Amino acid sequence: MSGPAPIEMQDIAAAARRLAGQVRRTPVLELAASELGTSQPVALKLEFLQHTGSFKARGALNRIALATLPPAGVIAASGGNHGAAVAWAAQRRGVRAEIFVPEPTPAAKLLRINGYGATVVRGGAAYAEAFAACQARQAETGALMVHAYDQAEVLAGQGTVGLEFEHDAPDLTHVLVAVGGGGLIGGIAGWYAGRAAVIGVEPHSCPTLNAALAAGRPVPVEVGGIAADSLGARQVGGLMFATAQRYGLGAVTAPDTAIRDAQRWLWDRLRIVAEPGGATAFAALLCGAFVPPEGARVGVVLCGANTNLASSGIEP
Amino acid sequence: MSGPAPIEMQDIAAAARRLAGQVRRTPVLELAASELGTSQPVALKLEFLQHTGSFKARGALNRIALATLPPAGVIAASGGNHGAAVAWAAQRRGVRAEIFVPEPTPAAKLLRINGYGATVVRGGAAYAEAFAACQARQAETGALMVHAYDQAEVLAGQGTVGLEFEHDAPDLTHVLVAVGGGGLIGGIAGWYAGRAAVIGVEPHSCPTLNAALAAGRPVPVEVGGIAADSLGARQVGGLMFATAQRYGLGAVTAPDTAIRDAQRWLWDRLRIVAEPGGATAFAALLCGAFVPPEGARVGVVLCGANTNLASSGIEP
Repeated sequence: MSGPAPIEMQDIAAAARRLAGQVRRTPVLELAASELGTSQPVALKLEFLQHTGSFKARGALNRIALATLPPAGVIAASGGNHGAAVAWAAQRRGVRAEIFVPEPTPAAKLLRINGYGATVVRGGAAYAEAFAACQARQAETGALMVHAYDQAEVLAGQGTVGLEFEHDAPDLTHVLVAVGGGGLIGGIAGWYAGRAAVIGVEPHSCPTLNAALAAGRPVPVEVGGIAADSLGARQVGGLMFATAQRYGLGAVTAPDTAIRDAQRWLWDRLRIVAEPGGATAFAALLCGAFVPPEGARVGVVLCGANTNLASSGIEP
Repeated sequence: MSGPAPIEMQDIAAAARRLAGQVRRTPVLELAASELGTSQPVALKLEFLQHTGSFKARGALNRIALATLPPAGVIAASGGNHGAAVAWAAQRRGVRAEIFVPEPTPAAKLLRINGYGATVVRGGAAYAEAFAACQARQAETGALMVHAYDQAEVLAGQGTVGLEFEHDAPDLTHVLVAVGGGGLIGGIAGWYAGRAAVIGVEPHSCPTLNAALAAGRPVPVEVGGIAADSLGARQVGGLMFATAQRYGLGAVTAPDTAIRDAQRWLWDRLRIVAEPGGATAFAALLCGAFVPPEGARVGVVLCGANTNLASSGIEP
């Protein structure tokens, strides 16, 4: 039995052409080696500047752009960021969107989804329950499912983050990416195709990729902690896992305390607001969960900023 | 009687070499023309990502790098951002810093100044009173004065914002820059030397450049409003005014309501936190105080982010 095929560079390059002018080409900020005690400068991809406040706009728009849209429009389940992206992309195409989110989805994300005119259906303790409800509803309406991380068009869209990052920082040897369901890292690893080591970073409390690598296949894990609203998929997708196996992705974990410290560091030093999932990859570098080998040129994707200022806890 | 000489490109290029690796090379984000209803994309220089949270790090470090430092160290008066920058630069050089700030300086800025180990002296209603106290103290101690906006080394440092901006967005026709004492715009205009139209944007409530252009010389004005902690100098500096006259700088004003709207827009659409003074240049574009001519390629400097999240009023 053959599993799903890894995403290919050519699909990502095609997505980049399709998305040009539709999504933002987010810039890269270089941090001097002295700022982090590394041997080389560290490159931050400021993807939180993307439409909808996270990278999810890329995959959602690529999926919707390639589809024939049924009268019922589009449907998706999401911890929040993907839902906002699908709502945004649907609004651009002038079609309806119905978004299923679990109960813990924070207000900042609900506001976004509503703000793009989508219908929100809230229920369930985590993403997996929202996804089950979404699937049942999709069977009724026939709306186009836009999966949060396990569709080829979605991975190809997310992979454009890697394409841009390599263009703007061509000498990276290691790229750190947060992992939930794995759509972002699957796309980025598909782009790099081994030209840089792509390393997944997960909260201790959402170790989907670490568990999959240990088991040799995607397996469900318990999810929780401060980043669960963006990294709280219960297992990684089959497409990303095929990519992870082909290119031998690494994976590390960071505790919630390190993620909060990374949020604070980003605010104190850079005046960047990152949500917990958006700071998780950077946390691995700060807390030593990932120690760059001597001479490594590390890149980090800061992938989301949909958090409430007042409740973020990053202000002294 | 000859006035001060405008700042020259060669001084700015020398400052850029001196500051390389010491200050951050802040990136540029392109906004599609459709996002703002302009005929061309708009380029945002993300200078709030600079060390200390504003462009002021450049001028302060350039001044201190060029000086022979007396035993008393350095001294400065500031609404807050310049003080943080001087404290940071002094800490890098391992010398003492004494910073005079007026009473209204917000907590976010005081925290920064203290955080870099400087001594803070608070008093007076606005920048001008803090500067008078600073001058008196400087006469006692002999510390090196680092002026917030009217020293050639400071202008040359701030001008490196223009050098970088032109490199990264070489086709700009108009550059919008917030004005208080005018150090930033003086440096940027000195760099562009007429190759782009440099336009000062001021709050209605701090119209130092508009008043100076009307009077034909720097004149004192009343200052107040939400951006006074960064744009609240009572008059523009002589150096910047000489530059403004040589290159025929434009100047517009924006009301405080438009500045707050710009802060909200930057947060809602880009997840950027800008302080009022940091959003003032962008406000002119959003509220129509500056209307780009057909075909114009506009650049905007987002120059500061030292505000409190909780009190910023930009969250819904």
